[in-house]
Amino acid sequence: MKRIYLDHIAATPLRPEAFEAMRPYLGDAFGNPQSLHAAGREAQEAVEAAREEVAALIGASASEIYFTSSGSEANNFAVKGMATGQQARGRHIVVSGIEHTSVLNSVKALERAGFTATLVPVDRDGRIDPAEVEKALTKDTVLVSAMMANSEVGTIEPVAAIAAVCRSRNVLFHTDAVAAAGSIPIDVKALGVDALSLAGDQFYGPKGTAALYVRRGARILPLIDGGIQEGGRRGGTENVAGIVGLGRAAALARAEMAARTAALVPLRDRLLDELPRRIGHVLVTGSRADRLPHHASFCIEFVEGEAMLLFLDMQGIAASSGSACTSKSLKASHVLLAMGYDHATAQGSLVFSLIDGTAAADIEALFTAFPPIVEKLRGMSPLYTQYLKDRGSDVQR
Amino acid sequence: MKRIYLDHIAATPLRPEAFEAMRPYLGDAFGNPQSLHAAGREAQEAVEAAREEVAALIGASASEIYFTSSGSEANNFAVKGMATGQQARGRHIVVSGIEHTSVLNSVKALERAGFTATLVPVDRDGRIDPAEVEKALTKDTVLVSAMMANSEVGTIEPVAAIAAVCRSRNVLFHTDAVAAAGSIPIDVKALGVDALSLAGDQFYGPKGTAALYVRRGARILPLIDGGIQEGGRRGGTENVAGIVGLGRAAALARAEMAARTAALVPLRDRLLDELPRRIGHVLVTGSRADRLPHHASFCIEFVEGEAMLLFLDMQGIAASSGSACTSKSLKASHVLLAMGYDHATAQGSLVFSLIDGTAAADIEALFTAFPPIVEKLRGMSPLYTQYLKDRGSDVQR
Repeated sequence: MKRIYLDHIAATPLRPEAFEAMRPYLGDAFGNPQSLHAAGREAQEAVEAAREEVAALIGASASEIYFTSSGSEANNFAVKGMATGQQARGRHIVVSGIEHTSVLNSVKALERAGFTATLVPVDRDGRIDPAEVEKALTKDTVLVSAMMANSEVGTIEPVAAIAAVCRSRNVLFHTDAVAAAGSIPIDVKALGVDALSLAGDQFYGPKGTAALYVRRGARILPLIDGGIQEGGRRGGTENVAGIVGLGRAAALARAEMAARTAALVPLRDRLLDELPRRIGHVLVTGSRADRLPHHASFCIEFVEGEAMLLFLDMQGIAASSGSACTSKSLKASHVLLAMGYDHATAQGSLVFSLIDGTAAADIEALFTAFPPIVEKLRGMSPLYTQYLKDRGSDVQR
Repeated sequence: MKRIYLDHIAATPLRPEAFEAMRPYLGDAFGNPQSLHAAGREAQEAVEAAREEVAALIGASASEIYFTSSGSEANNFAVKGMATGQQARGRHIVVSGIEHTSVLNSVKALERAGFTATLVPVDRDGRIDPAEVEKALTKDTVLVSAMMANSEVGTIEPVAAIAAVCRSRNVLFHTDAVAAAGSIPIDVKALGVDALSLAGDQFYGPKGTAALYVRRGARILPLIDGGIQEGGRRGGTENVAGIVGLGRAAALARAEMAARTAALVPLRDRLLDELPRRIGHVLVTGSRADRLPHHASFCIEFVEGEAMLLFLDMQGIAASSGSACTSKSLKASHVLLAMGYDHATAQGSLVFSLIDGTAAADIEALFTAFPPIVEKLRGMSPLYTQYLKDRGSDVQR
């Protein structure tokens, strides 16, 4: 059985070039970057070269890049570290209702510590309105966190406009760009953000590697207190090999982004256009205009996402029903609920996210495999039976 | 020039077997363990197998192991997560004065949040007295953190006795075993600890991999809030390859510990016995009786640690002057100061820490290379000149 992997949002494969770059640091070059000897210097030079590459991907200076072990750690670091670092000024934070759980649960932790938070609503496309962010600001607001792109519905957010609102009110602004970085162009200076999270496993780098950009001069307290690593802002021996792989992946992403986007967008659009034609009761979720180039998401009515995933998997097709971080929790996506979908519809969430090398034939194979799966599952669905019955009564009337 | 690496405490080399175990997960097996498809299940099975291996190394159950990205993260997780998780009961914590900076700075962060802390003194050998821990406990104490072994002076602490004190007073006890795990036998149940930190790069596993043991039933809040990974206690996509490497290294450490100890202890003892004979004014730091098998540490009087490291490095010998996490901060070690050494003596701290494969010839090469370095540096030392002058005057008087 040919395997077709359409789950970019859960993890991208590691680029062989990134693996080759990592390899010496999983072998003889095992020094600790903080050591005052040749092995240490060699490791430190590799880490600093990678920092330059990650900085270049987002238009930052190397000294503004802090390596972390995941996008979630970067988000915790930003939200908790910037909020607590400024609590003398105020204890109110503003976030959108569709943020990743690492942001939303960081906010809950801050609420337990005495902060208050406002969740900004989004529209049916999952779009955050900068005017709503502005309305949510109070004199006690010290931090706004709004994502650059949503991994469940693919919508790219108006981050520059939100940043402008925050800057005009002298409030720090963090954007979770984990789903976006490496896939769409980012320039932190042009955007005007104070902090930005990114993760290697979203652009063909290794798992366990991520970074937080913090604008020079922006105040942040460590999440992981420790030694002098990362300018004293993030303790822990550096994951040298992982950081090197992240740097190489960042360089590759910068070089190849335009070509990859050109290759994937037509496939994405064919999925978005054609799937609702081939299967009834299929809704495209998220924005059509402002959308990640690799991302096609749907609600398949009268079917549960998990069941579809298991049947697709039996056909060798890997997809997801939303964030991998909550995939096994069996709850309706908070993102779709915030966008105004009802619980039943949100249960039918399905994301096909393309990777480097996804071919037109893969999409056609999906068009062949998927409709019978939906038909079969709907045949077992009491909700669908009820729907058909209701429609039948309508016709009879 | 032959390179001699005597800096285990900064980083051990990655075992080739661990690299081979990791390799598939840096290649085709790139799934996210939380995904509901074959690629996800394959990754999850690998992570859970590694969890079993890490648990076996310390006598824990797999469900009590939480993977983190460094020993520092594990220490932050334990200290902050257990203290804040119990703050309704009290807000006082007790730690020894020789803990790692990740523990001591976590304590400072808690103090900023309203906790108070007591630092327990140590003796000249760096030994924590369980009776001193008991004296420090108050009715508000909710957590004690005391390390299993100190990486700067090699002393193994009486952790079981400290744990017994804590248990009798119903206070949670965390031990930072980063320097010890994989090098000496550990059984968390026999020791009676509630939490224990370990790190892969201290036993020939990959950097960026570590774990916190948390006894079932012990309350802890996440450091990294996020999704459902690690039972909801540590968010972030799992570093699958790293975790697999950690697991393999744990299995190897368990199998080989006794033989490695038998090989290294005589070399360690030769260093500890012979170096003070070959060079004047050399003090052995830390305990002779209760000491890590790979660890020889000294204060070389009238010489600065950093200068010795640079001259040793020029001869191809890698060593350290204390914790790599603070090596470039040029401050006298808080550990040696807590043990009663004065600032000047503490500046001469030097650690030779042996790794798998260190040979008798390496130690002899050190005995050849090192005395001239000390002599040369002392020749440039105003303190030593003054000392000789004072001694000369004494002789004349």
